[in-house]
Amino acid sequence: MKFLLYFLKLVRKNILSRAVIILVGVVVFLLFILEFSKYSSSVNKARYTKKRPDEDLEQYLIFVGGIPRSGTTLMRKMLESHPDIRCGPETHVIPWLLKDHYEWTTSTKEFVRLVEAGVAPHALDNAMAKFILSIIVHHGPPAKYLCNKDPYSLQATTYLHGLFPNSKFILMLRDGRASAHSVISKGITVGNWNIKSYRDVLMHWNDEINNMYKECLTSGPKVCLPVHYEKLVLQPVATTKKIFNFLGIPWCKEVLHHEDHANETKLSAYELSTDQVKKPLYLEGLTKWFGKIPPDVERDMAFIAPMLKILGYNPEERRPKYGEPDDFVLKKLNI
Amino acid sequence: MKFLLYFLKLVRKNILSRAVIILVGVVVFLLFILEFSKYSSSVNKARYTKKRPDEDLEQYLIFVGGIPRSGTTLMRKMLESHPDIRCGPETHVIPWLLKDHYEWTTSTKEFVRLVEAGVAPHALDNAMAKFILSIIVHHGPPAKYLCNKDPYSLQATTYLHGLFPNSKFILMLRDGRASAHSVISKGITVGNWNIKSYRDVLMHWNDEINNMYKECLTSGPKVCLPVHYEKLVLQPVATTKKIFNFLGIPWCKEVLHHEDHANETKLSAYELSTDQVKKPLYLEGLTKWFGKIPPDVERDMAFIAPMLKILGYNPEERRPKYGEPDDFVLKKLNI
Repeated sequence: MKFLLYFLKLVRKNILSRAVIILVGVVVFLLFILEFSKYSSSVNKARYTKKRPDEDLEQYLIFVGGIPRSGTTLMRKMLESHPDIRCGPETHVIPWLLKDHYEWTTSTKEFVRLVEAGVAPHALDNAMAKFILSIIVHHGPPAKYLCNKDPYSLQATTYLHGLFPNSKFILMLRDGRASAHSVISKGITVGNWNIKSYRDVLMHWNDEINNMYKECLTSGPKVCLPVHYEKLVLQPVATTKKIFNFLGIPWCKEVLHHEDHANETKLSAYELSTDQVKKPLYLEGLTKWFGKIPPDVERDMAFIAPMLKILGYNPEERRPKYGEPDDFVLKKLNI
Repeated sequence: MKFLLYFLKLVRKNILSRAVIILVGVVVFLLFILEFSKYSSSVNKARYTKKRPDEDLEQYLIFVGGIPRSGTTLMRKMLESHPDIRCGPETHVIPWLLKDHYEWTTSTKEFVRLVEAGVAPHALDNAMAKFILSIIVHHGPPAKYLCNKDPYSLQATTYLHGLFPNSKFILMLRDGRASAHSVISKGITVGNWNIKSYRDVLMHWNDEINNMYKECLTSGPKVCLPVHYEKLVLQPVATTKKIFNFLGIPWCKEVLHHEDHANETKLSAYELSTDQVKKPLYLEGLTKWFGKIPPDVERDMAFIAPMLKILGYNPEERRPKYGEPDDFVLKKLNI
């Protein structure tokens, strides 16, 4: 302060004014040069050493899964109607690799061998994460939020969450009888399911959803959200709002009009659910299975598929009501 | 210049000296602050965005492989006796993933599906390379030259070379009759080989070495070097010099004394060849199979295993001479 006052005094006396102006000019020029050199060097650095998005294991990822014919494709389309989200088609190789990993780490002999060789767990986890992330990043265009829909990946929810600590998971749930009818009536190959038999398909459905649901609950409500297909179809407004709240992404009304976007987003001709997604919200999917299940299977339903009850479906009811459509759906149906 | 002279004149007149000194002090202080902030920000950048070695797909890698019981472990030990090379134990997961890749890309239906989903070939190759590199880098200590010995990886030499354009490959070749005898007498499980039958084992040996040898020749002599096990054992000096010349790494005499290093390097107890490597150069492995092959198999040898002849072994000879030991080996044997 004293220095400034002394200066101002000199300036007022008109002795220093010219020198001071020139000096200030020089200082400003030097600062400018320095700032500019800093800026241009950081630009170069950004170009050459910037972390590529596919290398960032900390990034936010969304995984969507569930048993086949449980609305995973509908969920994908709904998410992709949001301008900031990209899922892309099923990659197949991600659940395949997760299955390999399961084999490597659940066989004691193989696992001990991998630990002995320094491969498991650290190097292997690192490699798994890089493979998965690289596929997710590179098999489609960039987006603010990347998502992956490979139904069976949700069998490994806790492991995937370990690899990607900032990831979230959406597990689609659906009345297993409807899924079974869809698989059988369309003749869809699913693993080693015997698709000639409702009993066999429902038992597989039960085992697999039991595992996926456990994985989801173990991960906790902040990490994995179970979503009932029936609610997504009947009350899309409340359900999608709940989903986006869970994801921490702002909801927008576009997600209710996913069918409008069906042509924009690449839907693989090889994905079996593509036929359904192109139609507007379809309620007929809810009831198609009524009366299609053999009487002996219906009789033993609570025993064959105890997960029905756990997930909130009544195994005794042969024509269950899944709830009332909301105003949005009613309006759509009237058109 | 004019400005400076004007200034000096003022200074000389003792009017401005104090003000100038203070001003210069302020400028220097500002410069210091700026430089320091620049320095500390670049330190942070270096720490967080520096390319890690495992991300460099352009790096030099050595792959060692061949049919089981063909000297791949001996080659690994020989290479690891060099102070700049680290191979580490077999990783198992690398050939497993390469087999997955083979299945994904040779089934037309699966491949079309992967292309349709944007996965194959680019995203998949990128993910494959990252997985493999991450395992190689992280399953052992760092070294100037990283090497990987998973015998069956050499079935995919051309593909691996595509992923890692600066990699080199060493394919171990051995008289299939000796390999067959080793597999059968030690009861080693190899894929779906029927290890009760010399005929079956030799037919599998023939098919697999046929494929690996083709892959090696296709890659060209600068990329893949076939090395005869018998030559490595009988004439280690000339053979190792040839290998290091191919690798472009300076040869050193330590590579002749790999048995001295056996305790330093971690040899997995699960690797079947570990028993042999701990002994000094062993010539008995060359002739152990003499008289052990059933007469009907010996009679049909040229038909069962035509690769013998292609690789320079005489299928008609029942007690072949593989060449003379060099001076180094003779000296060792006399001790």
